[in-house]
Amino acid sequence: MSCDVLTIGLAGLGTVGSGFVHLLSENKEELRARTGCDIRLKSVAVRDTTRQRNLPDGVQLLNDPMQLATDPEIDVVIELMGGIETAKQLIARSLENGKQIITANKALLAEEGACLFRLAEEKKAALRYEASVAGGIPIVETLKESLTGNRINSLEGILNGTGNYILSEMTSKGRTFDAALADAQEKGYAEADPTLDIDGYDTAHKLVLLIRLAWGVDYPYTEMPIRGIRNLDRMDIEFAREFGYRIKLLGRAKMRNGQLEAGVFPTLVNHTYLLARVGGAFNAVRLEGNAVGSLFLHGLGAGSLPTASAVLGDLVSIARHNNRLNSGFYQQVLPKANILPPEQACSTYYMRFMVKDDPGVLRDLAGALSDQGVSIAQAIQKGQSEGAVPLVFMTHEASVQAVSKAVDNMRRADFLLAPAICYRVMG
Amino acid sequence: MSCDVLTIGLAGLGTVGSGFVHLLSENKEELRARTGCDIRLKSVAVRDTTRQRNLPDGVQLLNDPMQLATDPEIDVVIELMGGIETAKQLIARSLENGKQIITANKALLAEEGACLFRLAEEKKAALRYEASVAGGIPIVETLKESLTGNRINSLEGILNGTGNYILSEMTSKGRTFDAALADAQEKGYAEADPTLDIDGYDTAHKLVLLIRLAWGVDYPYTEMPIRGIRNLDRMDIEFAREFGYRIKLLGRAKMRNGQLEAGVFPTLVNHTYLLARVGGAFNAVRLEGNAVGSLFLHGLGAGSLPTASAVLGDLVSIARHNNRLNSGFYQQVLPKANILPPEQACSTYYMRFMVKDDPGVLRDLAGALSDQGVSIAQAIQKGQSEGAVPLVFMTHEASVQAVSKAVDNMRRADFLLAPAICYRVMG
Repeated sequence: MSCDVLTIGLAGLGTVGSGFVHLLSENKEELRARTGCDIRLKSVAVRDTTRQRNLPDGVQLLNDPMQLATDPEIDVVIELMGGIETAKQLIARSLENGKQIITANKALLAEEGACLFRLAEEKKAALRYEASVAGGIPIVETLKESLTGNRINSLEGILNGTGNYILSEMTSKGRTFDAALADAQEKGYAEADPTLDIDGYDTAHKLVLLIRLAWGVDYPYTEMPIRGIRNLDRMDIEFAREFGYRIKLLGRAKMRNGQLEAGVFPTLVNHTYLLARVGGAFNAVRLEGNAVGSLFLHGLGAGSLPTASAVLGDLVSIARHNNRLNSGFYQQVLPKANILPPEQACSTYYMRFMVKDDPGVLRDLAGALSDQGVSIAQAIQKGQSEGAVPLVFMTHEASVQAVSKAVDNMRRADFLLAPAICYRVMG
Repeated sequence: MSCDVLTIGLAGLGTVGSGFVHLLSENKEELRARTGCDIRLKSVAVRDTTRQRNLPDGVQLLNDPMQLATDPEIDVVIELMGGIETAKQLIARSLENGKQIITANKALLAEEGACLFRLAEEKKAALRYEASVAGGIPIVETLKESLTGNRINSLEGILNGTGNYILSEMTSKGRTFDAALADAQEKGYAEADPTLDIDGYDTAHKLVLLIRLAWGVDYPYTEMPIRGIRNLDRMDIEFAREFGYRIKLLGRAKMRNGQLEAGVFPTLVNHTYLLARVGGAFNAVRLEGNAVGSLFLHGLGAGSLPTASAVLGDLVSIARHNNRLNSGFYQQVLPKANILPPEQACSTYYMRFMVKDDPGVLRDLAGALSDQGVSIAQAIQKGQSEGAVPLVFMTHEASVQAVSKAVDNMRRADFLLAPAICYRVMG
């Protein structure tokens, strides 16, 4: 069980990489107590080797990550560079050379993970990735180990801290989307190009990984319906609140009669749910299994130390020679998911239409909905100064198809002064 | 990695045992997909073999659990009988005969676990116990595997669903303690003798296990300060609410300057905390690590299927030959905890005193507190019809010693018409 010394190489010394290096010495005693062995950081590969780095004595700085893959002394390669191509090459080459891998790279695993998992299987190597989903929340391990006696029915996650921070600021402080985004950028939560976060792609990457872990199937990232929160109107946050909901960016997946229904959408969450209480840059995952019932995990989904915590957990696992079932399933090469065609998905909906303040417009809109079998559960109509009046509905369960057809018909009939807003509702 | 067939023997066919047997066939395909092997239930030991049992064909019914320990075909013995003596014998004898163990027996592990863990270590056997703490919530695995890169600073748990159900009923429906307890007994949440649940012993058992996992030390159960919720007055729930708190039965442990401060107490939890939102028979654990930050896990802490979910997770782990670091530390024989003397523990306090409605009594009480250096942050005084008036204080941080000395002095000075109520405050 012991390994005496485990030698590691690290690629990437950004936020997570630096946190990892810091914790490796800060928690040295804990790590030894947990594994019985010394963990030695031999080399770190960075893009710019001329910059001043805060590294322990004796750690070698490289500018070619591929040197980690070929160094025979290195047992474990930790990939924290991000990006697709170089990271993929590094991992593939490291696996070929018999190394174990830890990565936080959700984009890579979601878009191109299948071949890497296959290679790891061939090489009987660990390819661990707790840090790639929800930072410090141990959702990968939970699905891979603890819940293996369950049939998972559904899971929902707030998987992007930046997006959740923006929504929380809009909700609690009444900020506009642009102001909240600018604030997130200033605080370092959001990148200069916030596309991955706010347009839902990052959430979708993580959802693909959670689906693999929960159901043992491959859900092609390119087939995932994705909608982000860009330019979400605070008016909708207010209306949602009147109905008793908070708007959250959720990744959701559900097994319905053997078909997987999944996607990333801004979603109204009942304010009594724990998911609705997830504030700021926190992440959370809620899932339902046929044995465990409802389980909810909440923690810091990003940031230097929480993410590094996940990397270290994986490293301890490798040091302990824990069995490497990378997928959590005995069969490592996973079949493609049986995907419910997205237009057949059903949900209750929140809808907002901007209309002229004319008599009969409520009747016409309600008619367009009922023509498609979309029935209304609640409605709010409020006067506005400008002549453009928001008409807001909560519907009963309806299919995506029915809803989009109804909206299409409204658009064609020229009822709408602005594009219709349709968000799914949970609870 | 494969094992073809894993043969198990089960002791105990109560709530959890039946749930386990049910899931074993219900989730057969999932289990095979997760392990690559068939899990075969060979024998079940029950007290009364004459009763009609719903068991799959071919399962042998025994009335002596020790037969499981001596059956050479059995690989894994699952102990779900409860109780101390027989369970301990069964586990010890099974370990001696080279079997792996899964148990849900928190009382046994908390009170007499040390020798069993030592024996498991000698025999290089797994002794797994996810089901013994917080039912379906994977807190054992999380501490043992995922958070191993952390130094844990503190943890708090709502670890007893019965107690939490009673408090939730009292809070949401204004019931008395007795009415809520009777209701819990009627619903099957509470035993006829509810001592373990409502007097805090069950929570303390689980806390001892969590302390082992978090800090790798043995906290003797007999040294744990324990106070339950028996006869908690709904008046205090109301006052707590006025201050913005909910009363919860918490097991708490915190590392302070190398000393462990731990105990089980009814505690006022700030209503904005997720812990305050844990309703009904749910359990939750919140912890703080120096890497992960704050982490919160919430789920069903008892009941047939959620607890069986944890047993199955452990079984899958054994089937996969996962490394058996039973304690989560390399060193399996754990040192005794360095325990902070309980009277030196510090906390903010909620205090209620029933006093005569006389002028000067507020001054006298406040004086008795300030004499011991206990300073008051907020106070509520309300008139009552009976002449006995509740005086309620929230204090700043004070030591247990100072608080009990102040209360002693009040008692001696004959200020109090009823015993003083002192609850700790979190947040």
